[in-house]
Amino acid sequence: MAFSVTILGNASAKPTPTHHPSAQVVNLNEQYYLVDAGEGVQQQLIRRGINPLRLRAVFISHLHGDHCFGLFPLISTLGLMGKRTPLDVYAPAPFGEILDYHLRYFDSELPYEVKWHEVRTTEHRIIMENSTLEVWSVPLRHRVPTAGYHFREKQPGLNVDKWKIEHYGLSIAQIVAAKRGEDIYLEDGRIVPNAEITYRPYEARSYAYLSDTAYSAKAAERVKGVDLLYHEATYAMSEEQWAKGRGHSTTTEAARAAVKAEAGRLIIGHFSSRYKNHDALVEECRTIFSNTHLATEGEVFTIEEQR
Amino acid sequence: MAFSVTILGNASAKPTPTHHPSAQVVNLNEQYYLVDAGEGVQQQLIRRGINPLRLRAVFISHLHGDHCFGLFPLISTLGLMGKRTPLDVYAPAPFGEILDYHLRYFDSELPYEVKWHEVRTTEHRIIMENSTLEVWSVPLRHRVPTAGYHFREKQPGLNVDKWKIEHYGLSIAQIVAAKRGEDIYLEDGRIVPNAEITYRPYEARSYAYLSDTAYSAKAAERVKGVDLLYHEATYAMSEEQWAKGRGHSTTTEAARAAVKAEAGRLIIGHFSSRYKNHDALVEECRTIFSNTHLATEGEVFTIEEQR
Repeated sequence: MAFSVTILGNASAKPTPTHHPSAQVVNLNEQYYLVDAGEGVQQQLIRRGINPLRLRAVFISHLHGDHCFGLFPLISTLGLMGKRTPLDVYAPAPFGEILDYHLRYFDSELPYEVKWHEVRTTEHRIIMENSTLEVWSVPLRHRVPTAGYHFREKQPGLNVDKWKIEHYGLSIAQIVAAKRGEDIYLEDGRIVPNAEITYRPYEARSYAYLSDTAYSAKAAERVKGVDLLYHEATYAMSEEQWAKGRGHSTTTEAARAAVKAEAGRLIIGHFSSRYKNHDALVEECRTIFSNTHLATEGEVFTIEEQR
Repeated sequence: MAFSVTILGNASAKPTPTHHPSAQVVNLNEQYYLVDAGEGVQQQLIRRGINPLRLRAVFISHLHGDHCFGLFPLISTLGLMGKRTPLDVYAPAPFGEILDYHLRYFDSELPYEVKWHEVRTTEHRIIMENSTLEVWSVPLRHRVPTAGYHFREKQPGLNVDKWKIEHYGLSIAQIVAAKRGEDIYLEDGRIVPNAEITYRPYEARSYAYLSDTAYSAKAAERVKGVDLLYHEATYAMSEEQWAKGRGHSTTTEAARAAVKAEAGRLIIGHFSSRYKNHDALVEECRTIFSNTHLATEGEVFTIEEQR
């Protein structure tokens, strides 16, 4: 099952000629989720070959404009494109009021429903769930109520080792029981431990989006073991005081968060417009967390299955 | 004095990978005015080397999202960039209410004032004026209240012919009187007619922006003699019924408007996303109005002084 993240925007609030404000698409097994929606996200989706109609839900971290201004044009466009099924939007309050005003003035006859699910940004909890995925809100530390999002693939079901099925002559009922995690009772009285005959085809994977935020050890702990971590690194390491005052992180703070989270890989973004050379920012992270990469616009980060 | 128009966006409502929704900058003698503000306009300004802080005013034709969604991010960014002087926004109602809720949720501490000037879209009148420029609202025919904008350079002052000054030995006082339009009384009793000794350095120039609109002969008449006319041409000539139903124009209707307006030059834009080949649309216009051009994104159209 594919699990990937496409970066649509990695700039921060001030626009630059070449970079777009925060937006990403998480793709788990062809379920597409938009994470943050800076201005221009609809055009970025189309540029990257992602049909906006395929988005199942939108997750907004906080109500600063550079994370959500692009959602309103997108909502209108989805109507123009013929959307009729609801769009779920997970966002902190008072997004519901903002949505109401927007619809009243711009889309009073939207042909589909936008369903707002309030995200309580002080809570670490499951906010969305289906058969393959859980999404958790992760409290962050910013100037306004902000939640990060942790996309956790559900543990795949147990597979029964084919050789063992043959070896023990297991019946369908026994295979089904084994897949449920049970030990198997053979006709001759032997008990076969479940762990001997079953295996997980791969370990559940996860992706966490932590932005915007000052350094938060707690947030990092809450995503412990994450395979791919996106963490904002608005400022270079020399700007720690300034970053703290603005509710942002530096490169080295992002790297420390990755260490604390025991992340597999770190990608950084939300760069201040003052920096032209993003590679230098990545290098600063690598002094602490070597497996750091730029969340380059257009790039697709794949989280491979680990068998 | 420079008088030019820079095209920032020529797409219509549905986004395309390569074109941006409606936005233009009119530059008269280094006074910059933004006309319509589709999503992404702030980035387009920066790409085209126009400092958003230099915008004196914004004119919004109507409150469809593809003409104004980009204004709200721009308002925020101007605050980040340090703007302290007011921004005048000319737009139809209920823009004022929309602005209020935007500021409440996104910019409650904006460090400058956004001053809304209501444009009554059924009226043909001066809505803005200074020493060099008049801007007129032009009622248009669309699905929501819509005004076009007519930028009319004020007639330049009279110049006194240097050779005549010498020939008649005119005093400073007499030169000043001639510049006021008066006839000159010479000491020997002769009266020199003003028209003999004065001239206009150039004829006043004008630019009209007519979008979005179905064909309107009245609007065309109201901008009669315009040097450069921008007229929407959302659809090809074969789509006349469809265009009318949507409150838009076809290529040939735009051309007819240019003929009626006795325009110097016509530029067309606001193309439906269905058309990949815009040159074909220009050709359709040229069958009726030969001096038609594409309002290509990034292009700067200069209105030369005619001496």
